[in-house]
Amino acid sequence: MANILDSGVKLVRNVGRYNIGASSLGELHGLLARLRTEASQKGEPAYAIFLVDRYFKPDSTTGDRLAFRSGDALKFIDTTDEPTTDEIDSLVAALLQEGYTKPVAVVGMGGGITMDTAKAVSNLLTNGGKAAQYQGWDLVKLPGIFKVGIPTISGTGAEATRTCVMTNPASGLKLGMNSDFTVFDHVIMDPELTATVPRDQYFYTGMDAYIHCIEALAGSYRNAIGDAYSRETINLCRQVFLEDDMQTPANRERLMVASYLGGCAIATSYVGLVHPLSAGLSVVLGVHHCVGNCIVMRAMADYYPAAYDEFWQMAERQRVSVPEGICRNLDDATYKALYDASTMHQKPLTNALGENYKAILTLEKVTDLFRKM
Amino acid sequence: MANILDSGVKLVRNVGRYNIGASSLGELHGLLARLRTEASQKGEPAYAIFLVDRYFKPDSTTGDRLAFRSGDALKFIDTTDEPTTDEIDSLVAALLQEGYTKPVAVVGMGGGITMDTAKAVSNLLTNGGKAAQYQGWDLVKLPGIFKVGIPTISGTGAEATRTCVMTNPASGLKLGMNSDFTVFDHVIMDPELTATVPRDQYFYTGMDAYIHCIEALAGSYRNAIGDAYSRETINLCRQVFLEDDMQTPANRERLMVASYLGGCAIATSYVGLVHPLSAGLSVVLGVHHCVGNCIVMRAMADYYPAAYDEFWQMAERQRVSVPEGICRNLDDATYKALYDASTMHQKPLTNALGENYKAILTLEKVTDLFRKM
Repeated sequence: MANILDSGVKLVRNVGRYNIGASSLGELHGLLARLRTEASQKGEPAYAIFLVDRYFKPDSTTGDRLAFRSGDALKFIDTTDEPTTDEIDSLVAALLQEGYTKPVAVVGMGGGITMDTAKAVSNLLTNGGKAAQYQGWDLVKLPGIFKVGIPTISGTGAEATRTCVMTNPASGLKLGMNSDFTVFDHVIMDPELTATVPRDQYFYTGMDAYIHCIEALAGSYRNAIGDAYSRETINLCRQVFLEDDMQTPANRERLMVASYLGGCAIATSYVGLVHPLSAGLSVVLGVHHCVGNCIVMRAMADYYPAAYDEFWQMAERQRVSVPEGICRNLDDATYKALYDASTMHQKPLTNALGENYKAILTLEKVTDLFRKM
Repeated sequence: MANILDSGVKLVRNVGRYNIGASSLGELHGLLARLRTEASQKGEPAYAIFLVDRYFKPDSTTGDRLAFRSGDALKFIDTTDEPTTDEIDSLVAALLQEGYTKPVAVVGMGGGITMDTAKAVSNLLTNGGKAAQYQGWDLVKLPGIFKVGIPTISGTGAEATRTCVMTNPASGLKLGMNSDFTVFDHVIMDPELTATVPRDQYFYTGMDAYIHCIEALAGSYRNAIGDAYSRETINLCRQVFLEDDMQTPANRERLMVASYLGGCAIATSYVGLVHPLSAGLSVVLGVHHCVGNCIVMRAMADYYPAAYDEFWQMAERQRVSVPEGICRNLDDATYKALYDASTMHQKPLTNALGENYKAILTLEKVTDLFRKM
């Protein structure tokens, strides 16, 4: 094991409350009813804002399941690409223009993109200004609107973390609002919601939890609680992905817990080599985060040998194919761009390889790694 | 594995925030300073209440370490016996009489008794009335005073749970204020605070986390997140107690995390056979909770065979002796009292042995178990 460094993470905010278990989405009705009653008793408006992955748009029961009522706002979120600060700003401007200035809650239902959008919108409604102003650490000054997260795919841990990742198109900066105020006040984990996730997507996203925790436990920045969350997240992923069917009801519940605990682990630790390389794929080639991580695993035999073996065993067991060869024949400028976009991630790379990581990750070496993907 | 029953636990409140790591007690200064400033800005009084295990009374640095200042209340808590509702009421009455009606925070520093006392006092200061009125489930109607928990011994998980156990001397009822409002707003986990715990006490208390999670994982009432917390709690206990020295700095930090995660596990699961028998020892013979659990383990070979072996291996490895023979030669009336006080715990015994547990736990059988202790 490497020399253990203090992670520097001293204070952690937890999700306020959570529901767990099949059919727990139904608990949203009582929760919103209480919030609406409290607002009405204070003479305040009692509407809510729902931000929902557009996947659920054709489903005519979505409104009822979410306790939507007349006067509420319901916006479907396009998840083709990860969110930009401009898109968040447009969404907030539209809500404000329609009069949704002080909702009782912002409810986000979907995957990481929708979760992060809900967190950002909630913060901006009370703090004002533009999303880009809050990209960084502890720049949010006021608590956001009461925020409810309802994940419908498991793995990124967005339901448990204190950030909401956005790309600023003007600066190219991909960074979230890292703040205690970004943490959800309430999370509903209902594994029935992940029954219809396509198999590949289910695997790629679930692996985000696995890979983060592998990176965290192999790193130098550590603490006892982050290690504990990481170990159990990996344990749950093994239960899910080394079984014959990763999508049984019991395995969907396990993966939902793994995602949440993996998010708790992220809150007190750092990633390693996989995530920076995957960020390179996202920024330069537009590859989505979770499948990007899986692609990077093609090149990780020397760095995470045990996890490399296990990862490919899981992929085989679940008969999931991971894209191959996407970086095989690029031009030098693109390899340089991938190198730059990957090696800028100082903290995780120090965590994985030590302070002199640039001596290990030369342009030649990094190019070689991308060629293997 | 037994038939899996739904635990019925659907909604869980987390501790608001936590600090973790050596020297994190120092973070209390900034936290209290912020709370005092906020109160002053609103024109409200800015004093705090400190409830501290009397173990720390002779230490002249205690006040400074806790950021005590003139005008605050500092009460040392006698931990000879577990708290009664009358004692809690007397403490609250004394605080009110001294003018401490609206503190910025109630800070509890100590073991489970002190943690539970701080939780109860916080709730009573805002809800009024007597402690006994709130023994039960969800009887507390208003949020308590902002409560800070600082554990100085690890295992019971009181820092993470939604209850505060008290005995009502009039009715004999031993039951806490089970409420979301009982959960700490802030917990500081500083493993330096457990450096001076006597070895036996350290072992007995740590085993409370281990035993609860063994009981939970062997039970019928289950869910995926409770199982996850329980598994990792047991894993941490193994790391601590199967090593040569359970009290190294790293092991003290691990056990602090095990206590917290064990508390999170309790919040979504039930105990089994050990805790009810241990409750019998407490009520009838005045044995403290944690050593009581360890004594009960003498009779658990048939019920938790793997945990039985591991428990005694741990005790041997740490050279800790567990009292023996305390129930060997009691009169029939006392055995009957032990039987009654143990078998009244319906939910955990159903969890362990099924709904017809009374057919298994006959007076003769229970007497036999106590004789083995």
